[in-house]
Amino acid sequence: MAKVSFIGLGVMGSGMVRRLLAAGHEVTGYNRTEAKAQPLLEAGMKWAESPCAVARGGDFLFTMVSNTDALHAVSSGPNGIVAGLSAGKIYIDMSTVSPAASRELAAAVASKGAAMLDAPVSGSISTMEEGKLSIMVGGDRAAYEKSLPILQVIGPKVTHVGANGLAVSMKIATNLSLAVQMLALSEGVLLAEKSGIARETALEVLLNSVIASPMVKYRGPFILKMPDEAWFDINMMQKDLLLALEMGRKLDVPLPTTAITNELLTTARAMGFEKQDFAVLFQALARMAGVKK
Amino acid sequence: MAKVSFIGLGVMGSGMVRRLLAAGHEVTGYNRTEAKAQPLLEAGMKWAESPCAVARGGDFLFTMVSNTDALHAVSSGPNGIVAGLSAGKIYIDMSTVSPAASRELAAAVASKGAAMLDAPVSGSISTMEEGKLSIMVGGDRAAYEKSLPILQVIGPKVTHVGANGLAVSMKIATNLSLAVQMLALSEGVLLAEKSGIARETALEVLLNSVIASPMVKYRGPFILKMPDEAWFDINMMQKDLLLALEMGRKLDVPLPTTAITNELLTTARAMGFEKQDFAVLFQALARMAGVKK
Amino acid sequence: MAKVSFIGLGVMGSGMVRRLLAAGHEVTGYNRTEAKAQPLLEAGMKWAESPCAVARGGDFLFTMVSNTDALHAVSSGPNGIVAGLSAGKIYIDMSTVSPAASRELAAAVASKGAAMLDAPVSGSISTMEEGKLSIMVGGDRAAYEKSLPILQVIGPKVTHVGANGLAVSMKIATNLSLAVQMLALSEGVLLAEKSGIARETALEVLLNSVIASPMVKYRGPFILKMPDEAWFDINMMQKDLLLALEMGRKLDVPLPTTAITNELLTTARAMGFEKQDFAVLFQALARMAGVKK
Amino acid sequence: MAKVSFIGLGVMGSGMVRRLLAAGHEVTGYNRTEAKAQPLLEAGMKWAESPCAVARGGDFLFTMVSNTDALHAVSSGPNGIVAGLSAGKIYIDMSTVSPAASRELAAAVASKGAAMLDAPVSGSISTMEEGKLSIMVGGDRAAYEKSLPILQVIGPKVTHVGANGLAVSMKIATNLSLAVQMLALSEGVLLAEKSGIARETALEVLLNSVIASPMVKYRGPFILKMPDEAWFDINMMQKDLLLALEMGRKLDVPLPTTAITNELLTTARAMGFEKQDFAVLFQALARMAGVKK
Repeated sequence: MAKVSFIGLGVMGSGMVRRLLAAGHEVTGYNRTEAKAQPLLEAGMKWAESPCAVARGGDFLFTMVSNTDALHAVSSGPNGIVAGLSAGKIYIDMSTVSPAASRELAAAVASKGAAMLDAPVSGSISTMEEGKLSIMVGGDRAAYEKSLPILQVIGPKVTHVGANGLAVSMKIATNLSLAVQMLALSEGVLLAEKSGIARETALEVLLNSVIASPMVKYRGPFILKMPDEAWFDINMMQKDLLLALEMGRKLDVPLPTTAITNELLTTARAMGFEKQDFAVLFQALARMAGVKK
Repeated sequence: MAKVSFIGLGVMGSGMVRRLLAAGHEVTGYNRTEAKAQPLLEAGMKWAESPCAVARGGDFLFTMVSNTDALHAVSSGPNGIVAGLSAGKIYIDMSTVSPAASRELAAAVASKGAAMLDAPVSGSISTMEEGKLSIMVGGDRAAYEKSLPILQVIGPKVTHVGANGLAVSMKIATNLSLAVQMLALSEGVLLAEKSGIARETALEVLLNSVIASPMVKYRGPFILKMPDEAWFDINMMQKDLLLALEMGRKLDVPLPTTAITNELLTTARAMGFEKQDFAVLFQALARMAGVKK
Repeated sequence: MAKVSFIGLGVMGSGMVRRLLAAGHEVTGYNRTEAKAQPLLEAGMKWAESPCAVARGGDFLFTMVSNTDALHAVSSGPNGIVAGLSAGKIYIDMSTVSPAASRELAAAVASKGAAMLDAPVSGSISTMEEGKLSIMVGGDRAAYEKSLPILQVIGPKVTHVGANGLAVSMKIATNLSLAVQMLALSEGVLLAEKSGIARETALEVLLNSVIASPMVKYRGPFILKMPDEAWFDINMMQKDLLLALEMGRKLDVPLPTTAITNELLTTARAMGFEKQDFAVLFQALARMAGVKK
Repeated sequence: MAKVSFIGLGVMGSGMVRRLLAAGHEVTGYNRTEAKAQPLLEAGMKWAESPCAVARGGDFLFTMVSNTDALHAVSSGPNGIVAGLSAGKIYIDMSTVSPAASRELAAAVASKGAAMLDAPVSGSISTMEEGKLSIMVGGDRAAYEKSLPILQVIGPKVTHVGANGLAVSMKIATNLSLAVQMLALSEGVLLAEKSGIARETALEVLLNSVIASPMVKYRGPFILKMPDEAWFDINMMQKDLLLALEMGRKLDVPLPTTAITNELLTTARAMGFEKQDFAVLFQALARMAGVKK
């Protein structure tokens, strides 16, 4: 069994720690808000006082934070993880951040003799609980192979896509379709509904058609009833689209459907839907179409 | 066994006639270009000299033509099907045409004492051959119930969505997502590729992700190798988007992703990709991104 | 002085007739709704009972109607103008219709030995009253030269742009920028306002900047106060954008800003702004931005 | 006459210094690349060794740099201008940078007892040489009034729009229309040309129409012949659109025409037009339309 450190104990991070503990690993954790760690501490996780202290511990260090700024906050400075890493350690970042920031951090980690992998996941908390999470990995192949048994505890489908930063690039390239498919689905439902077809019937037909991706199957029903808690809210979705749009500018790839969908996410936020799952794109478009509810 | 008439013997129409013949029905057919009917005649289909003559025959009349103009051509005038229909007959149009045109034709058919159903399908020739075609039906429920056994020979999933014209409305509302999903997928593949990930690897990851609808799974591989023959070419796809955009204007539904994707279909045609499957949207976007092949 | 016939006595048509009467020409008019002609009859215009009767009269026949369907209504059939035209007559259509429809009508007119010119105008009723209207002309050069003195009574800037249909093509190619410029202006005003700049100040700066086209100068103030009566309402503006989008598809010209602006016109109509001047695009975008008024 | 310091001696900055020298002011300058200052040194400008040294000198300090990063480079650190400023000095930044960065710098400047104004200009070098440049000013009104006589040497139209950062906000809100109007103009020219109207004729009609803003009049002719040197290249234009899009996200203003035009700027760069004036949007769209030249 390995000594594992984990920073970032939100919904996804906590789920991962539970799986690691359940598999018999020794886990030490850190989170900006300590209170969130309480259930995990009761489940056997140890606590560390700072990112730096966590990094000094285990053989494998994980981070799962919400964006590039949060990653900077835990990685840099005297209390950051780079300061705590040393030769031979493997650091695995599972956050979705900008590929450039990921590569910069990998270089800083390498300068301490450690190795970094970017390892974002595809799927939500329920996918993970079902044991179906996919993990894409970027970085040194030897480090990848050493980490594989631990990563497979988190999710069974692990794919090495190339050098540092490429796994987050791949994640971002995937995620833009989430929002675009949701908006196109909404356009279809509203067209059908205003034609005279019941919203439920329209949705049923669409969910049985060739356009029904797993994402469409998960979120389609949210058109009828939004979930009590957002799986992935408007701002989170927009964060990923902004990373895609930034990559598009740097790499010279025009992204017409991404760009226009991003403006609809802004519209949804302006209409007061900020905290809701991005399936609320349907509600935003419905208002633009003069549909009351 | 029933007496069935069939007008429009293209790829889809011919496949349907084969299934009807195989199930033991007596089929009389008509097609503008008679030569296309030869293999079906050898398989047992009978020939009629005009749409009107066909309509005068069997108890169930089917049409499967390429657009609204083609439907007008076979339905109106002294040799058209309306002239041939009489009380008690059931006429089933499987084409994707404008909902307004479909409703107008249904009214003309009703004035002859016959009943019309609009019954577009979701799926391609391969879906039909696998016996998995979905059929949406609009129109009178009694006529729908009488037709059900025959329709189930063509495809097993038959859904009555409402009054005349609503099935084609539903079909159009579904199809807009085909093109939008294809363009969003292309944006993702190009982002990944220009990041440094092999096109094959990028596509593999995307086809295993939550955005992989059946459509994405069918057409994703076309990004690596376009098919010798288009399944659904740029102009056919644009025809459906134009029907969606026309409905959007009449029903006051803004369609941002549909509108912008439609301009990319025009771009693809302007670049010389007119005759290719609409998966060629990838090639059009690649050129805009300065990618040679 | 010439004998002039005029069909279509709306705001623009009536203004033109007044100018022709003021210049001493003998004018016979026709309008679907006779009541609208009353003030012109008092000003000296004569009345004719049908388009055909009007066409049989004067040497120059004008039409100024609202769209392609209205042009068909007055031009075809036994009471239509084609039936009334004869060799040597010149027929000038000032409506904005589809270039294809214009060319078809020109062919029908030519078959009667008469000549047709398409002559749409650029500018509104106030431009005409100031004597500054521009007129673009498509069609036979000899017919153009014969008509020039009469056209100059209506507006001083008359340009021959080429063969039949090309003047309406040019008009449509110009008009798409009206809506796009208005929407871009609205985006700028809302950005400035939400930054903390008073709407009036923002508008003043914009109206003094390099983006202030005559259109922006006319309609910018409508952002502060919509006019009591629309100069050019949402549906009229959308009619022109649809003609542009149709041309774009036929001629293979992608129109990204036109397509997306057209969806915002639909949004404006869905929000209940149908009857208002298209400057109401600002209000539609403001609602999308969560701005109350 | 005042003691004026000036940092950033590019095309615009040099032109401003010349006007200040011509008006009799004593000017001390600094530029990252010293060579560019040579002609100004010959014209009487003095040289300083660092931004900090420049800031320590004159009563009025100006900066005119290319983007937010360049402004950070000259303003922060031990050699930066903030380190050199002291009570009573007035610092005027004429660059177009992010409003947030401008406000942060203003706060740093205030902490030294000095006052900062953001004062971006509307117009190009030729506008300035004609003595017609507009200047928008954000910041403290007293500092604005003290600076007015000096600002009027640079351009005659000076408007105080509000607090710190609001002038750059206003500039960005104006500039988005530059690119959008250029793209809409290009759509119109290509529609007309593919209809059969000569490109020159189409452009002439458009330049005489109600859509002809000063920007359209300047850049329209570039469609026929691109200038030898870019006035404002693709990357500069995209920098401004990105600032607008960033503001839109922060302030919840959807920017549909800006977002789609921005993707066309990326397309133009991907096609190899990076160094050209943004009027090259026409060429990018022409390629998408299959037009060779």
